[in-house]
Amino acid sequence: MSDPIVGIVMGSQSDWNVMRHAAEQLQSFGVPFETRVVSAHRTPDLLFSYAESAEERGLACIIAGAGGAAHLPGMIAAKTIVPVLGVPVPSAYLKGMDSLLSIVQMPKGIPVATFAIGEAGAANAGLFAAALLARNDGSLASALNAFRAKQRDTVLAMSLPPEEQA
Amino acid sequence: MSDPIVGIVMGSQSDWNVMRHAAEQLQSFGVPFETRVVSAHRTPDLLFSYAESAEERGLACIIAGAGGAAHLPGMIAAKTIVPVLGVPVPSAYLKGMDSLLSIVQMPKGIPVATFAIGEAGAANAGLFAAALLARNDGSLASALNAFRAKQRDTVLAMSLPPEEQA
Amino acid sequence: MSDPIVGIVMGSQSDWNVMRHAAEQLQSFGVPFETRVVSAHRTPDLLFSYAESAEERGLACIIAGAGGAAHLPGMIAAKTIVPVLGVPVPSAYLKGMDSLLSIVQMPKGIPVATFAIGEAGAANAGLFAAALLARNDGSLASALNAFRAKQRDTVLAMSLPPEEQA
Amino acid sequence: MSDPIVGIVMGSQSDWNVMRHAAEQLQSFGVPFETRVVSAHRTPDLLFSYAESAEERGLACIIAGAGGAAHLPGMIAAKTIVPVLGVPVPSAYLKGMDSLLSIVQMPKGIPVATFAIGEAGAANAGLFAAALLARNDGSLASALNAFRAKQRDTVLAMSLPPEEQA
Amino acid sequence: MSDPIVGIVMGSQSDWNVMRHAAEQLQSFGVPFETRVVSAHRTPDLLFSYAESAEERGLACIIAGAGGAAHLPGMIAAKTIVPVLGVPVPSAYLKGMDSLLSIVQMPKGIPVATFAIGEAGAANAGLFAAALLARNDGSLASALNAFRAKQRDTVLAMSLPPEEQA
Amino acid sequence: MSDPIVGIVMGSQSDWNVMRHAAEQLQSFGVPFETRVVSAHRTPDLLFSYAESAEERGLACIIAGAGGAAHLPGMIAAKTIVPVLGVPVPSAYLKGMDSLLSIVQMPKGIPVATFAIGEAGAANAGLFAAALLARNDGSLASALNAFRAKQRDTVLAMSLPPEEQA
Amino acid sequence: MSDPIVGIVMGSQSDWNVMRHAAEQLQSFGVPFETRVVSAHRTPDLLFSYAESAEERGLACIIAGAGGAAHLPGMIAAKTIVPVLGVPVPSAYLKGMDSLLSIVQMPKGIPVATFAIGEAGAANAGLFAAALLARNDGSLASALNAFRAKQRDTVLAMSLPPEEQA
Amino acid sequence: MSDPIVGIVMGSQSDWNVMRHAAEQLQSFGVPFETRVVSAHRTPDLLFSYAESAEERGLACIIAGAGGAAHLPGMIAAKTIVPVLGVPVPSAYLKGMDSLLSIVQMPKGIPVATFAIGEAGAANAGLFAAALLARNDGSLASALNAFRAKQRDTVLAMSLPPEEQA
Repeated sequence: MSDPIVGIVMGSQSDWNVMRHAAEQLQSFGVPFETRVVSAHRTPDLLFSYAESAEERGLACIIAGAGGAAHLPGMIAAKTIVPVLGVPVPSAYLKGMDSLLSIVQMPKGIPVATFAIGEAGAANAGLFAAALLARNDGSLASALNAFRAKQRDTVLAMSLPPEEQA
Repeated sequence: MSDPIVGIVMGSQSDWNVMRHAAEQLQSFGVPFETRVVSAHRTPDLLFSYAESAEERGLACIIAGAGGAAHLPGMIAAKTIVPVLGVPVPSAYLKGMDSLLSIVQMPKGIPVATFAIGEAGAANAGLFAAALLARNDGSLASALNAFRAKQRDTVLAMSLPPEEQA
Repeated sequence: MSDPIVGIVMGSQSDWNVMRHAAEQLQSFGVPFETRVVSAHRTPDLLFSYAESAEERGLACIIAGAGGAAHLPGMIAAKTIVPVLGVPVPSAYLKGMDSLLSIVQMPKGIPVATFAIGEAGAANAGLFAAALLARNDGSLASALNAFRAKQRDTVLAMSLPPEEQA
Repeated sequence: MSDPIVGIVMGSQSDWNVMRHAAEQLQSFGVPFETRVVSAHRTPDLLFSYAESAEERGLACIIAGAGGAAHLPGMIAAKTIVPVLGVPVPSAYLKGMDSLLSIVQMPKGIPVATFAIGEAGAANAGLFAAALLARNDGSLASALNAFRAKQRDTVLAMSLPPEEQA
Repeated sequence: MSDPIVGIVMGSQSDWNVMRHAAEQLQSFGVPFETRVVSAHRTPDLLFSYAESAEERGLACIIAGAGGAAHLPGMIAAKTIVPVLGVPVPSAYLKGMDSLLSIVQMPKGIPVATFAIGEAGAANAGLFAAALLARNDGSLASALNAFRAKQRDTVLAMSLPPEEQA
Repeated sequence: MSDPIVGIVMGSQSDWNVMRHAAEQLQSFGVPFETRVVSAHRTPDLLFSYAESAEERGLACIIAGAGGAAHLPGMIAAKTIVPVLGVPVPSAYLKGMDSLLSIVQMPKGIPVATFAIGEAGAANAGLFAAALLARNDGSLASALNAFRAKQRDTVLAMSLPPEEQA
Repeated sequence: MSDPIVGIVMGSQSDWNVMRHAAEQLQSFGVPFETRVVSAHRTPDLLFSYAESAEERGLACIIAGAGGAAHLPGMIAAKTIVPVLGVPVPSAYLKGMDSLLSIVQMPKGIPVATFAIGEAGAANAGLFAAALLARNDGSLASALNAFRAKQRDTVLAMSLPPEEQA
Repeated sequence: MSDPIVGIVMGSQSDWNVMRHAAEQLQSFGVPFETRVVSAHRTPDLLFSYAESAEERGLACIIAGAGGAAHLPGMIAAKTIVPVLGVPVPSAYLKGMDSLLSIVQMPKGIPVATFAIGEAGAANAGLFAAALLARNDGSLASALNAFRAKQRDTVLAMSLPPEEQA
């Protein structure tokens, strides 16, 4: 079993239902990854040690999901140059608009690559991680292009109810 | 000169124009305070050490101002039980709505007391800090009540242009 | 039974489902508190008398929850120097964004410490109240630090579904 | 000089630049009015006494302007059955969206009639006050209808730059 | 049976579930009213004739509810000096924020008194209509004051679950 | 069977439940149309070929529905002068506000005619397409006017629960 | 000089600075048009007569610009089957978000084709009007395609400051 | 001079003032890049050819900035597996909120890594691009770590006006 090259972290077990979409994408491409609950607010020291060791542990990127006042992605990014992909987890009342702004509006100097609110964003963070790795992995690049082709074919095969015309 | 019992921190020198309103309130009540630039994203280790030492250094509370993806108040709160008062600094494009949501929408377990966007919020954080201390400081309580009375009298003395009536 | 040192007020019985989270936190730390329905709009005189007597009754702080055009926290704050902690109760259509802005955007001079919309905010207001008291209560400070440690351990013990890797 | 039958109140002298538009409308129709600085947060007792005496003083309605966490209109309405017309004064950062929601989202039981943010809303509150009085004042009704006609004629007389056509 | 002195109009039968709260308030105070479906967009001519005849028919005010691009209240107001009370009916996707802005943001010259989104706003429009009439109807004024007192007593009688204290 | 003169495209089969409302309007007026799944992001080449051939295939307009970062209408418009009618499909978390802004805020030079979020917008896009064609089709113009009359009559026939009056 | 086939209407002379962008596009394509100040709220009768006569006067479409509670486009559409193109004019405080929602969120049955807030939207409404006419006017279609080509060439000719590279 | 390995594209010359911040970061790290005006709506074919050739031309990633209905980043991503970094350029009226939602809310299947609105986002996209490359470039990794250290030291050296204490 290969060492993980992508880390997927989230603030709570309850985020798994959203964040598993990132894991599923990586798994489908055979990208080794790890998953971990890391809470910015409840386990700040774990956040720091996780981020500090990411570069030497060989992580190519870290996917971090959080909701509400979502500080996890930005604080990991503050502690490592390993690229951080942020996923806004939907919140109970503001539906993830708070999560999105808390993640994407980072100040100059510490970037967080942000994706859509919820499941789509988590899946796309997984795909983006695969795309990062594909630059140095021809077979992964081929797999991504094949994924795109298959996705295209799925849409092309979609039919709508019979058109009724005058 | 007394040891500071309130800390005022902000992510950048450029936040001073807003955050000085907190300092001015504390100064007017004779509350000893310190000011410090602490950036969640650019100086995360300083953030941690500042927060970790706050309790033993005797800080009664920490006023933290930040803008955009404003993680400073919440991350300090994650590292200390000393009460944290968050001030949303206005941001360039979203006018502090991003700052406000990033600060106030903290998850259950780690509270940040949040005030209004900008100068009013900074001043009120200073007043709130004084009010916290007033519980065990009768003269400070008297000063706060006097402040309220003076503020009331200022409003009562306000005149409007002559009313013209039918 | 000790005299209450924290007051929890809300505009209606229907707010209890949210505000009970504040009560539960205080109870878990053994902080004596009282609960009361006080409506800014339907019982303004009660609001005034409650706020006016708070200081002499020895309340260390008042947690006030309200929804929509949420005037309760700010109007209590207008009548006492006792610190007011505001909790935006979610509203039927705007999901508490109206409650949040009505509470947090106080003008310079009268502070209200505001917490997150809904249950998380109520719980955090309770925790914040405990933290205020902890400054002069060593055993409460210890209990809060223990709560933090336990909260940390809960996160550390969270497991996610088995990672499947390539 | 007649006794005022409309009260115009606002939280600060600085609101006059907006609220004078209400006064100007009333003046143009010869409706006797008074103006007063009444701050919900800084002069809550004045707010109560003003509202409590409104009915017996014969005020037909009260126009109240406030910004940010704008509690003035709703709290006056809580203390009198005299109709309250609320004007959201623009705020520094959120441009009056906070003022609007703080005024309009009143709970069932205590109505506040709300108008547009800023100058237009203030002027319209003045016109609405005149319309309320017109029901029992035929000459005022005529004046309002004449105002409408004049307003219509002003628009009808507006010309645009010469149309250039193919 | 008295002639109606308040008109309640709405864009569709489907708005009744919200707008009936206005009717219920008027009924409880014995204010004669009529209800009518008038759609700004589907029955514009009816809108005009309804508005044009309102003054001569003796309506004291018109309560108009509409959702989405809610033009009904403003267009009625454009055609009569009879006071118009607008109720933003919640919309399917934007939850009435569109309705609110479409109603409240009237330009200078044509006022619409706007109330909260949904049931609370409808009920308050009914109460406000009663308050308008109370100026010239002592028994209605007494009834309104009694309603306020009863409302206050209801709140005063609310109990919360037993407080458990340390 | 006539050649289609209106194209209805959408990003996924799952949009059909909204977009069928456009089809139903066209069908009711006997306007020949076609429906097609075309995804801006998953089938960009199909998007281009569809748009490029629209003018020569004789399409009078194209109704395009999409949700979230909704690029389909704007990108079709970028490739053809055939008028494009955009329908914002509601999104999971932001309820179509993202879809609306992504469609309507087109830069100067490439217009997209945008309709309301969801079913109402889809139906209206269908009606608008019919109205475009009616300029050169007298019977279609008559049918549209008849539709308006019927719609008016439906509203006029709506009754509300019996009015109870004092 | 040809009879106008496009009408451009706006609520006030002050909207001309935005709406002239629609006129300029039409003029550049040689499409005969007329401009007119028509206020939904101040000249509702003119609005009705303008809309009622549009079909028989041979207008192919009407471009209507309005701000705030922008009822002009929707009310014109309520009175004619002639296609209405709505332009949200920026408002003083909410920057046209109110105008946009007031125009685009039309209920099922009465469509208004909506364009971007401000100058871009006005210009695009003009372009869209030309595109509608181009279906039956080969030279106008050619002109539109030429406009697109020129616009493309302008972009292709844009240069950026010299790239400095490692 | 090396071949570019990062592409920076934007919809118009007028975006340069924002997007130059991306270029400046890349330049400071010695990363070879190219800049190009590519408009999704005005030069869609260029967009396609640019995206289609990106992989074979050896671009490691593409930074794309756009405002309003910002389709450029998403449409490039639709045509290549090369990672796309999206920068929301501030828009005239909605201040980039439309740009942000148009870029970040991509559907599952086609990721766009999104950064903050405006200059900060552009700079951070540049830094993120450098971080992507650093995985296979030890000296670039060192340079990034040095940049972080320098940035930290800059903050540590910031002083605030002298603290005045009681």
